[in-house]
Amino acid sequence: MLETFPNPEPGRDYEITHTAHEFTSLCPITGQPDFATLVVCYVPAERCVELRSLKLYLQGYRQQGVFYEALVNRVLTDLVAALAPRRMEVRGEFSVRGGLSSVVVARHAAGGQPGPGRA
Amino acid sequence: MLETFPNPEPGRDYEITHTAHEFTSLCPITGQPDFATLVVCYVPAERCVELRSLKLYLQGYRQQGVFYEALVNRVLTDLVAALAPRRMEVRGEFSVRGGLSSVVVARHAAGGQPGPGRA
Amino acid sequence: MLETFPNPEPGRDYEITHTAHEFTSLCPITGQPDFATLVVCYVPAERCVELRSLKLYLQGYRQQGVFYEALVNRVLTDLVAALAPRRMEVRGEFSVRGGLSSVVVARHAAGGQPGPGRA
Amino acid sequence: MLETFPNPEPGRDYEITHTAHEFTSLCPITGQPDFATLVVCYVPAERCVELRSLKLYLQGYRQQGVFYEALVNRVLTDLVAALAPRRMEVRGEFSVRGGLSSVVVARHAAGGQPGPGRA
Amino acid sequence: MLETFPNPEPGRDYEITHTAHEFTSLCPITGQPDFATLVVCYVPAERCVELRSLKLYLQGYRQQGVFYEALVNRVLTDLVAALAPRRMEVRGEFSVRGGLSSVVVARHAAGGQPGPGRA
Amino acid sequence: MLETFPNPEPGRDYEITHTAHEFTSLCPITGQPDFATLVVCYVPAERCVELRSLKLYLQGYRQQGVFYEALVNRVLTDLVAALAPRRMEVRGEFSVRGGLSSVVVARHAAGGQPGPGRA
Amino acid sequence: MLETFPNPEPGRDYEITHTAHEFTSLCPITGQPDFATLVVCYVPAERCVELRSLKLYLQGYRQQGVFYEALVNRVLTDLVAALAPRRMEVRGEFSVRGGLSSVVVARHAAGGQPGPGRA
Amino acid sequence: MLETFPNPEPGRDYEITHTAHEFTSLCPITGQPDFATLVVCYVPAERCVELRSLKLYLQGYRQQGVFYEALVNRVLTDLVAALAPRRMEVRGEFSVRGGLSSVVVARHAAGGQPGPGRA
Amino acid sequence: MLETFPNPEPGRDYEITHTAHEFTSLCPITGQPDFATLVVCYVPAERCVELRSLKLYLQGYRQQGVFYEALVNRVLTDLVAALAPRRMEVRGEFSVRGGLSSVVVARHAAGGQPGPGRA
Amino acid sequence: MLETFPNPEPGRDYEITHTAHEFTSLCPITGQPDFATLVVCYVPAERCVELRSLKLYLQGYRQQGVFYEALVNRVLTDLVAALAPRRMEVRGEFSVRGGLSSVVVARHAAGGQPGPGRA
Repeated sequence: MLETFPNPEPGRDYEITHTAHEFTSLCPITGQPDFATLVVCYVPAERCVELRSLKLYLQGYRQQGVFYEALVNRVLTDLVAALAPRRMEVRGEFSVRGGLSSVVVARHAAGGQPGPGRA
Repeated sequence: MLETFPNPEPGRDYEITHTAHEFTSLCPITGQPDFATLVVCYVPAERCVELRSLKLYLQGYRQQGVFYEALVNRVLTDLVAALAPRRMEVRGEFSVRGGLSSVVVARHAAGGQPGPGRA
Repeated sequence: MLETFPNPEPGRDYEITHTAHEFTSLCPITGQPDFATLVVCYVPAERCVELRSLKLYLQGYRQQGVFYEALVNRVLTDLVAALAPRRMEVRGEFSVRGGLSSVVVARHAAGGQPGPGRA
Repeated sequence: MLETFPNPEPGRDYEITHTAHEFTSLCPITGQPDFATLVVCYVPAERCVELRSLKLYLQGYRQQGVFYEALVNRVLTDLVAALAPRRMEVRGEFSVRGGLSSVVVARHAAGGQPGPGRA
Repeated sequence: MLETFPNPEPGRDYEITHTAHEFTSLCPITGQPDFATLVVCYVPAERCVELRSLKLYLQGYRQQGVFYEALVNRVLTDLVAALAPRRMEVRGEFSVRGGLSSVVVARHAAGGQPGPGRA
Repeated sequence: MLETFPNPEPGRDYEITHTAHEFTSLCPITGQPDFATLVVCYVPAERCVELRSLKLYLQGYRQQGVFYEALVNRVLTDLVAALAPRRMEVRGEFSVRGGLSSVVVARHAAGGQPGPGRA
Repeated sequence: MLETFPNPEPGRDYEITHTAHEFTSLCPITGQPDFATLVVCYVPAERCVELRSLKLYLQGYRQQGVFYEALVNRVLTDLVAALAPRRMEVRGEFSVRGGLSSVVVARHAAGGQPGPGRA
Repeated sequence: MLETFPNPEPGRDYEITHTAHEFTSLCPITGQPDFATLVVCYVPAERCVELRSLKLYLQGYRQQGVFYEALVNRVLTDLVAALAPRRMEVRGEFSVRGGLSSVVVARHAAGGQPGPGRA
Repeated sequence: MLETFPNPEPGRDYEITHTAHEFTSLCPITGQPDFATLVVCYVPAERCVELRSLKLYLQGYRQQGVFYEALVNRVLTDLVAALAPRRMEVRGEFSVRGGLSSVVVARHAAGGQPGPGRA
Repeated sequence: MLETFPNPEPGRDYEITHTAHEFTSLCPITGQPDFATLVVCYVPAERCVELRSLKLYLQGYRQQGVFYEALVNRVLTDLVAALAPRRMEVRGEFSVRGGLSSVVVARHAAGGQPGPGRA
């Protein structure tokens, strides 16, 4: 589902950040909607993610029940599988529930390199 | 009282931040209400804190008298006992009293690791 | 419980606004805490409300269960009874519950005069 | 579906505003998700809308295709039917599509009275 | 070029506002690019403007040289011709040139009615 | 103490607003310092207030004990006496005490004219 | 010095606002620099002011000593003489001096019409 | 004058920040009032500063003439003497004088440790 | 096309940042306009970029179709070729498309030095 | 022209930052005014800069033509000559010209020490 295109500048380390302002999924316990901002930041190796396919991939969670912690890790795992980036960070910023807001941040680095910093 | 669930991605270091915007306790000297924003940021090991039980745990301070410095350290100690996280930081941001606002930040790291940074 | 003092300038129409940034009460159905900003704006006649007694009066709701709509109207009724102001407006701005935030505004005018406008 | 409760202060004109920060529906042409903030402001007559049923009512649009203009008018019509308010305004603030953001505002007044002003 | 669709609620006066955050044209004297935010606010009569055609219409100015004052009036005239609205306001907010920013606002009302207020 | 100079344009109604961001006085009960922003807005008749003398006049309250309501009315009375303006408004915005912030606004109009509006 | 061009839409009442973010003059007493934001808002009759000549006109004050109140009235008088607008407002927002910031607003209306409102 | 209480968690390095929003002193040359925000951030060793005594200590500067640089260093020296903290930083943010605002930051570390970072 | 002038202080490492708030190009697939803020930050060696020529260079993309990732890398490559800076970073902040905003950041360092940090 | 006074705490490394919000000079090519915010941050050795003389020194550029890059370096060189600080940074933030804003930052360190960080 995630489509990619060749990195136009593979000889240079550079960062790409895509911020999805309109992410929504469902709470797996109550079935109530959850809303979040999802931020994907990465240093590409051979492939970049195509923007429209990233949008559709994230829309795929609209009717799925998933916990915050599992969601962020699954998005990271899926994007790493599709892109094999040098480094990647996925951040989910979840809106207030019961007076509490939550942020989950997970990072991947090829070959144990440090992550892309504070995306 | 603090309930936990298994970390869905124990093989990866990642950060979870819960921000309670509506914390209130009492001043142990005057009995007057105190108000704060409490931020809990941690890198889970085997267990994550369940969000609703965290909310109820924090509501448990509503009628308790407790000093700022003691409160933040006690919340950190209780959460470390319940979760045994790799790293954790608790921050309390207390509203203005007598023209002074206060912030208290305490950190824990398993095995002497550095804390999770600026949560 | 609400103490008052003589208006120092009864011959002049002027407005006084007190904003309580730290109001909290309980939901009468679930018992869960509610949080709000409460704004009292009035044109005094013979009496003004003493600030410390207003603070203590509002703290009296801390352990009471009360609906948003009833709360704002009751505060208005109590203050009108204590002060007999020329005009008064009470506004409650309630924090997010289930993705919805709420504002309730009620006004009183002695002898059918229009309220103090947009306080 | 919209549940109501008796207005606790029917003898007084006052305003209630509920703001839904997490509204989402579908575009009826493309099937793509739309996101909006929906604001309901009214002066109650005999009945007030129950907050949880309002939340569920708005969630009912999650998988429906509906145009901006039709949506705001339909929400207004449904709420007027359920509450028979003295005055009501519904405002939808829709997020950016193709570089354009949109706002639609519709008002109702019983017996031709003017609306509740600039909600 | 401007496409329209039937007003879904012709029996009710209501306001529609579309804000184009990415308007650009050319200065007719220097040929340098101008940038603006264009806001269209109207009360529809029989027809509403279709959002995508409004976007394309505004993109049509990208390579045209036009003065601020003429631009805003021309957009208003074109939209009034296409929609015959009850009331309409067009506002152009132009970015800084030589330390000066500019705003131009023009209004139309069918049959001499007052404009839609402060859109 | 308040010095004035001749209005350079007495034939035209126009507004002058001076905002003192650093006002401080004492609480007459506790002797504790109070802090406020004081805003003076007026339409001059024959005389304007000299800016430096206004600053010194307001500094004169630094060691005086005075209640919020009395302070704003006294400043208005003193300035009206010195300037005989067509209209004047004085607004005091007082910082948080015990979780409550306060605003007091008083107006004067020569010959019963309406005040200068929302200064 | 102020150049004008023919109003492209003389049959329609519309507003033009130019905001100069970088105005500076000198204090006539101390010779120290003053800084302000100057806002000119008008409804044109037959002529509009050319933007570059407005910029140069305002730069003409750079080495002149002038009081706030006199400056705003002089700019209004000069622009009214050059444009003969239906309505005009000039607003000067002056930066902090001795802890006080100041705003001066003057209006002109042809034939005694009311001003262009809150520009 | 500065009162202290025993650190409730001496075995843990943690940070306490108190921000005084309403500090005022006098200029030692002109006698004019100065205004500042003073921020005290420290890692306690055996003692913490009592909040009310800190407030009174800072109020003690109200009628004293002191230069910015000397003030910040003196507050740091006094607090280090009273608390013997592991690390401490004092920051004074002074309001605009003659178009210039100023910040002074001084740090102390027991035994040459680095300071508490960017408080 | 990019003009340069001699660095006035070649013996000192210092940073220059130019931010273009009004960048626009075309999407190479749909032909639709893209909008961005482009930030160029560099430490000059022998030459600095002339501001007007940088503006014209960036305007050259107005009618070109180019992907985000390729654009930022091409601007970096062109500027490095023209200036041979010690270090350079180019950042493109692209506006919302389909609910997603994007940022691309690329860096160059002469002789493998680290980049200029977070410009 | 730059006057200094003895550092009141020469035994302690601490930072002083002065921010001039109202800097203006001339473009050496067009003669048009430039506007900037100038920030001076330093760690004093034996001498501190006197605030009023710094203001007058910066006012000395009002009628001078100078390029951004040269200006910031010249201010740094002059201040280093007058103060011989341990470390110093000068930052100029220049307002928008042709849609581009610019920042220039230069640093000095006595004996090759690193600069004072991100002032």
